[in-house]
Amino acid sequence: MATIMDGKALAAEIDKTTTVRIQRLADQGIVPGLVVILVGDDPASKIYVRNKERRAKKMKINSIVRNLPDTISEADLIKIIQTYNENPTIHAILVQLPLPAHINEFNVTNAIAPEKDADGFHPTNIGKLVINHTEKTPIACTPQGIMSIFNAYHIDLDGKKAVVVGRSTIVGKPMAALLVNANATVTVAHSHTHNLSQLTREADILVVAVGIAKYIKEADVKSDAVVIDVGMDRDVNGKLVGDVDFAEVERKASYITPVPKGVGPMTITTLISQTVALAEWSSEKNG
Amino acid sequence: MATIMDGKALAAEIDKTTTVRIQRLADQGIVPGLVVILVGDDPASKIYVRNKERRAKKMKINSIVRNLPDTISEADLIKIIQTYNENPTIHAILVQLPLPAHINEFNVTNAIAPEKDADGFHPTNIGKLVINHTEKTPIACTPQGIMSIFNAYHIDLDGKKAVVVGRSTIVGKPMAALLVNANATVTVAHSHTHNLSQLTREADILVVAVGIAKYIKEADVKSDAVVIDVGMDRDVNGKLVGDVDFAEVERKASYITPVPKGVGPMTITTLISQTVALAEWSSEKNG
Repeated sequence: MATIMDGKALAAEIDKTTTVRIQRLADQGIVPGLVVILVGDDPASKIYVRNKERRAKKMKINSIVRNLPDTISEADLIKIIQTYNENPTIHAILVQLPLPAHINEFNVTNAIAPEKDADGFHPTNIGKLVINHTEKTPIACTPQGIMSIFNAYHIDLDGKKAVVVGRSTIVGKPMAALLVNANATVTVAHSHTHNLSQLTREADILVVAVGIAKYIKEADVKSDAVVIDVGMDRDVNGKLVGDVDFAEVERKASYITPVPKGVGPMTITTLISQTVALAEWSSEKNG
Repeated sequence: MATIMDGKALAAEIDKTTTVRIQRLADQGIVPGLVVILVGDDPASKIYVRNKERRAKKMKINSIVRNLPDTISEADLIKIIQTYNENPTIHAILVQLPLPAHINEFNVTNAIAPEKDADGFHPTNIGKLVINHTEKTPIACTPQGIMSIFNAYHIDLDGKKAVVVGRSTIVGKPMAALLVNANATVTVAHSHTHNLSQLTREADILVVAVGIAKYIKEADVKSDAVVIDVGMDRDVNGKLVGDVDFAEVERKASYITPVPKGVGPMTITTLISQTVALAEWSSEKNG
């Protein structure tokens, strides 16, 4: 049976350290400021935004949720982002994705000042991550949270075969870059991949972000693999499950993240921690 | 026996198209301007710079080689780059790597205006490539030249297993990004990879950039693989050879690039073509 990697407990541990850092900033008269921009009222996005806000409030950072109608133009959205770019009380800006079809995600992501990029999706920050220049560089929160899980459970990545299933800007691509930087041999698989099961069966480290409930079965996993499940899916009964069939794969893996209480809590914890880091970096620059 | 992919002939073909584009710019009174900055006198770098200059002159673009002493400070080098950033007759800036140890390559690459980035090494351009926003984005010339080879020989990449050996910013990382964007299943291998031969033997598409003469042997290659050799090495007799043992692997591969006259000429052709593209994009923006 696999060791279940407890993302919720680890998140609580990291939050403690973050609280100390927030206090240290408070002593300098700085309150980290995070603005979350929500365009339209996609139900899933609303839940994500509410969870982020709840945690931000609990951690006592200054959190603003800016709700905008889905009729807003790209130009007007970018103008609003620019006001936050210039606002010294805001250290981190997050635009909840997806955006309505008439708004270009690249243009919006690109409009966020790289030094206020809470999600690490700005091309400059992605480029810095890829070339392993990660000092004072915000990095996508989900893969960064997964790296914290590897670290907490002393998972050796060096020279290991890692397979990342999914190639989104949000998870797959930054995850692959982080694993390459950690000296893993990394394969990026995706919807066009042939013989996926054969590939995943060779993985010492398997990260799954496909958005299909219980997609990865016992037969798709190597014995004693480390399995990270990024999925947040609903099964036929409406129950929250991951992309990995936990009950099956738990028997074969050496380590596995559950859903819920695995990657999910670590993503929000990393967002808060990164917001604090952006405030720290800004104060170092100005101080 | 493999089809030998003739990079020299393909480069000549592409140069013809580039010549037409240069003429079209000339009709608008624009001469593409490329400045190549060489710090110190590393013999290999001097050869590369001379080859680039020779081709630029032949293609009738305005090419300037700026030789700087290896004692120059990072700050002074960056100041010089900034003068070219502001110079409207210069459309493309290339700093020959490697730089002397006292100069930080990241800081120098980052100082080049992204819209004048001849080599595509600026973090913003690397980030755009990784997120597949490649319109009007300069891309590293060697992997981009390799994509042109795939295209010219109608190599189907979609769903294919591609293995890139090497993870440099110059070749391996942008190559992997281009292959992922082309829907290949991509593995990045490097010095920490275990069982490299087992991995390369599974590759439908194998790109080798390790800098070790004749490193890849027949036993390391799958039957009918497409093999791209980025190496420019010297064998024991001082002869120019690649990272792939050509005589052996040619028997097993379906397609292979030779050394010389494979990837090498395509890199310079792509540099010239990209310089012209940067001039075109600049004129569209200003025109």
